Amino acid sequence: MAVNKPSTPRGTRDFSPTEMVKRNYIFDTIKSVFRKYGYQQIETPAMENLSTLMGKYGDEGDKLIFKILNSGDLIDQPLLISFEELLKYLEKRDIKLDLEYPLNFDNEELEEERKATWKNVKAKSFPELFKKANDAQPAFSLYRKVNSKLINTTSEKALRYDLTVPFARYVVMHQNEITMPFKRFQVQPVWRADRPQKGRYREFYQCDADVVGSDSLLNEAEFVLIYDEALSTLGLKDFTIKINNRKILSGIAEVIDKPDQIIDLTVAIDKLDKIGLDGVIKELNQKGFTDADIDKLKPVILLEGNNQEKLASLREALKQSEIGLKGCDEIETIFNYLDSFNLIKATIELDITLARGLNYYTGAIFEVKTNEAAMGSIGGGGRYDDLTGMFGLKGLTGAGISFGADRIYDVLEELKLFPDAAGQTTQLLICCFDKHGETYALPFLQELRSRDVRAELYPAGAKIKKQLDYANAKLIPYVVVIGSDEMESGLLTLKNMQTGVQEKLSTEMIVAMLTE
Amino acid sequence: MAVNKPSTPRGTRDFSPTEMVKRNYIFDTIKSVFRKYGYQQIETPAMENLSTLMGKYGDEGDKLIFKILNSGDLIDQPLLISFEELLKYLEKRDIKLDLEYPLNFDNEELEEERKATWKNVKAKSFPELFKKANDAQPAFSLYRKVNSKLINTTSEKALRYDLTVPFARYVVMHQNEITMPFKRFQVQPVWRADRPQKGRYREFYQCDADVVGSDSLLNEAEFVLIYDEALSTLGLKDFTIKINNRKILSGIAEVIDKPDQIIDLTVAIDKLDKIGLDGVIKELNQKGFTDADIDKLKPVILLEGNNQEKLASLREALKQSEIGLKGCDEIETIFNYLDSFNLIKATIELDITLARGLNYYTGAIFEVKTNEAAMGSIGGGGRYDDLTGMFGLKGLTGAGISFGADRIYDVLEELKLFPDAAGQTTQLLICCFDKHGETYALPFLQELRSRDVRAELYPAGAKIKKQLDYANAKLIPYVVVIGSDEMESGLLTLKNMQTGVQEKLSTEMIVAMLTE
Repeated sequence: MAVNKPSTPRGTRDFSPTEMVKRNYIFDTIKSVFRKYGYQQIETPAMENLSTLMGKYGDEGDKLIFKILNSGDLIDQPLLISFEELLKYLEKRDIKLDLEYPLNFDNEELEEERKATWKNVKAKSFPELFKKANDAQPAFSLYRKVNSKLINTTSEKALRYDLTVPFARYVVMHQNEITMPFKRFQVQPVWRADRPQKGRYREFYQCDADVVGSDSLLNEAEFVLIYDEALSTLGLKDFTIKINNRKILSGIAEVIDKPDQIIDLTVAIDKLDKIGLDGVIKELNQKGFTDADIDKLKPVILLEGNNQEKLASLREALKQSEIGLKGCDEIETIFNYLDSFNLIKATIELDITLARGLNYYTGAIFEVKTNEAAMGSIGGGGRYDDLTGMFGLKGLTGAGISFGADRIYDVLEELKLFPDAAGQTTQLLICCFDKHGETYALPFLQELRSRDVRAELYPAGAKIKKQLDYANAKLIPYVVVIGSDEMESGLLTLKNMQTGVQEKLSTEMIVAMLTE
Repeated sequence: MAVNKPSTPRGTRDFSPTEMVKRNYIFDTIKSVFRKYGYQQIETPAMENLSTLMGKYGDEGDKLIFKILNSGDLIDQPLLISFEELLKYLEKRDIKLDLEYPLNFDNEELEEERKATWKNVKAKSFPELFKKANDAQPAFSLYRKVNSKLINTTSEKALRYDLTVPFARYVVMHQNEITMPFKRFQVQPVWRADRPQKGRYREFYQCDADVVGSDSLLNEAEFVLIYDEALSTLGLKDFTIKINNRKILSGIAEVIDKPDQIIDLTVAIDKLDKIGLDGVIKELNQKGFTDADIDKLKPVILLEGNNQEKLASLREALKQSEIGLKGCDEIETIFNYLDSFNLIKATIELDITLARGLNYYTGAIFEVKTNEAAMGSIGGGGRYDDLTGMFGLKGLTGAGISFGADRIYDVLEELKLFPDAAGQTTQLLICCFDKHGETYALPFLQELRSRDVRAELYPAGAKIKKQLDYANAKLIPYVVVIGSDEMESGLLTLKNMQTGVQEKLSTEMIVAMLTE
């Protein structure tokens, strides 16, 4: 067998023990906050039916879905050995071809002409049909058609692209078992065939909480609390939870009657600090906004002050727009809820330039940024009025948030906020010189473990130096060395690997020290 | 958009909140025992390079590997529009075809003849070549060849089939970062394109611990301890850890010189209880074992008594076989280690009919069975002398075990051993009649959460009956109802949802009760 030079697929990663301890720390913290707020964990399969996923993420998203080959299909068997076999293959899979018009020309004129020619051709068999097709040009159009059908029936499953669509599928499929409102969280990997680059992977974990079946804005307020508590618990001290509302953006569009240019508008307004009012107006003019538009927009562009003041200005600017005012009401309700709670570290900011998820969010829009490190968004979410409509269950509103675990990892690393590994690594390594020491050590080893101390015995035979190196590599804080002196006296040498300090202690004292 | 009737792919499952609590209980228990014994967690990507996986699981296994289509490939673009385009496609992917002999006939005589004809054909281009190929019969052989090349380059990645091969790949790839012995555990899903049936899924979790780079039999003894502690902690009271050694089986084969019939032999011996000695001898005769063979085998067939007695009989039967005696020595060493430890619930049984993993295990073989429920093996493992050789790193010995999490789940369910969900579900639901009650409740809700009580407030507007149903469905043990009386008096109605008992308590008393 040829020896492979082993690697992982592009854009995927192994996680080492050290990385796993840190990742578990992040996930466990977030999960425990989700649970505290009444969210329950579910898991869905890595693979979904292709029909569940396709068409849910736009054309660009569809292309990034990893498709799985049907097992035992094309790879494992010779393809298209003869037309007879092809015919059987197609029949077996219930694939119907439009035999009356097998050709597909690029040249429109030719196509018309040939359509006429081919319209009434009905071949009795594929070979016959192919013969006819082959006499025309291009000879391979039928073949192409057959092939693309084959390929399309060759993949019926794909890896999940996010956790939201599988959640919607879950809700519809299990609607009779679920009590509404259904608050679920889910922490699982997703896969995207994106071009890998720094910080962007083809496999990464998503960490989502969503509630479905409740239109109360208390849910939105609690999402703010969840962000606040989880990120504070992880040690972040300064972060901003930005809030916007899709209805406010719709209101702005309504006021100036330019619904398609909401993105242009928010991008320009976002530059106010950098380029000043004149700069913004210039950019808006370039994008086709009229002076009348800009007059109406001025209160929006110049939105200043605290959140209450911003909201008041917005109400003034949007007074003509029913939907815009509804958005202001919703934001205000969320702020009122939050007034009843004390936030730990989060700053809340009404930011009308926040336009993420414009295609699907219908109410609140969230984004979270740390102010302690240069990093994009570390979380986001919003409300979508019709989550499950794509699977035929109408009128179910939902709202959800997501934590960007990989970015949070990088932030905690940069700010040195990870606790030491002591909570998970081995607490004590027993080293011995020979088989005799090993035998002596076994009951001590069991005693330690029966008291829930994480302990290891290095198998006899290795030099003590190597055993100590092992302890250091695994960040084991204490080592016990058992030699003939120790066995005679019953006092073992305990070494603190950080300070280097050694002392002679009885096994009882060591157990007591490690369990106190 | 057409509405899909949502489902999960065949052989895959959703896990509901209730199931997740139980699954987490199993995984958390096993992980915590792994950590106690010095094993460290790693994770590897769901997808591996196809070359990493193929050829590692035998022909049957290879067929069960789920392959992933290259992104942006055949599905997304029209296939084989013209030969010019095909040519570009092939060149871009550096696919070389053997142009001198593109045909592949089924009829041998014809093939010989045509081989001669085609031997010296060198087409200047694909179109030219195809023209020539097409003049001959069958016309599509070249096409087939092109296609099968295309299809094969269409999948370069696959979903992992187990955790052992990815672990071997990990060890080789990260050999410079790893300190030996490397003790790792891994709990992740694997995928197999098996025919789904009761208890067999296409996606399921494996739960493995392996040590690499240590030949000490202490590792094997500790695997027994890990099984004992993990399964006892999960509440199992009567289970057997069966131990065999591949070298003993090799020794038996050596003694009777029938290495290929080790499975026949163990299957027959395994029936001793049911069909008696005469029955076993009859079956062995039918399988071609001679009377002389059977005379030599009698001590093996009649192996009885405790483990020490069995070992003594085996030594006698295998006294001519060096490797057989080596196997006995290894088993004895493991038993000696275990003598130094007190097992909690496990029974250890030397069982020479245990022949799992005969293709790869070279030393100890383990299998675990519960004696409390009718269930196949709930765990297994063994030692393999050359784990990483397949990736070019020779001479690294390894040993490992696996827990069958799905089967353990079924056993715990059958024996009613799952603890109640109290550890993870919401502890208190606050119900109120209206917005006024909701506002009143918010500070109380925050107080509870700040004291780490998992608490929820049902958003205002729903009937109390519906709110109580919600608490029941989520198995929430306590409910507080806030009406106008409660707000006036400051004493809230606390209802124990199991007993139905209600009492009026201050918020301080409720917090104290839930945090004590």
